[in-house]
Amino acid sequence: MPAEITRKIHARLIKSSQTVAVAESCTGGGLSSLLTSLPGSSNYFLLGLVTYSNKAKTKLLNIPDRTIKKYGAVSRQVAMLMASGVRKKINADFGLSITGIAGPSGGTPAKPVGTVYICLSKKDGNICRKFNFRGSRREIRKGSTQKALQLLCAHLPR
Amino acid sequence: MPAEITRKIHARLIKSSQTVAVAESCTGGGLSSLLTSLPGSSNYFLLGLVTYSNKAKTKLLNIPDRTIKKYGAVSRQVAMLMASGVRKKINADFGLSITGIAGPSGGTPAKPVGTVYICLSKKDGNICRKFNFRGSRREIRKGSTQKALQLLCAHLPR
Repeated sequence: MPAEITRKIHARLIKSSQTVAVAESCTGGGLSSLLTSLPGSSNYFLLGLVTYSNKAKTKLLNIPDRTIKKYGAVSRQVAMLMASGVRKKINADFGLSITGIAGPSGGTPAKPVGTVYICLSKKDGNICRKFNFRGSRREIRKGSTQKALQLLCAHLPR
Repeated sequence: MPAEITRKIHARLIKSSQTVAVAESCTGGGLSSLLTSLPGSSNYFLLGLVTYSNKAKTKLLNIPDRTIKKYGAVSRQVAMLMASGVRKKINADFGLSITGIAGPSGGTPAKPVGTVYICLSKKDGNICRKFNFRGSRREIRKGSTQKALQLLCAHLPR
């Protein structure tokens, strides 16, 4: 399933000569790994940031400490800044971000384990989605990367 | 196999309160993904950079263009600068880097497909290894992440 969508993204990005950059947290590099799995991915994959710690989010993506404190690292606001930040950092056409709680710990009543924000940043605006995944850490990470790939694919010219 | 070594690294980093940061090229995020696969990895995994393009290597890790031109992106020199660069960027105890040719294209007689440099940067020095992997793109990527994990593990206090 991820292989098929990766192939579709690959073909569409090559055809449209567009580029992508990724900033991910709870998926820990899994999204970048899928987007670079096919030969020739260097044509469109410019950069992946695994900003796992808050320090990395602040330092690499210039996300203000106060934003992380106010909304939490797992929030629409931070997901948006991750996506637009990585896009601008390397001047890519698309920025794709994932931030969430893969568990098994780290959940709260307001944001239980499985809460994941996925954001796509384009030059003309951002799209952000909230998901509530169930299952193990591994399943939540896998579900998150799949949804992120689907979000990107849906916004690429056929 | 990667799961077992990941568990070993996890235990040793937690026990010694040490941290790690990763800069990877041909493995595209796979190394970061393994190092964040276990719950609690946020205690030691600070940052992962998937500097797939030369532009990313220059921009994120300040690797001079002339160094990449002189030695090639797949070289001991660049691997070293990736490992020390990412370590210093986030002030981690260890910096771990992979740069190589996963193929199927991109090989040359001097550096055939499967040529991979893996480097570990510590505060007191760097260790760099050259590998010549055989097999598919997937196998080369997998072999590279395993060897990188082994290099890190061997330098962690038991």
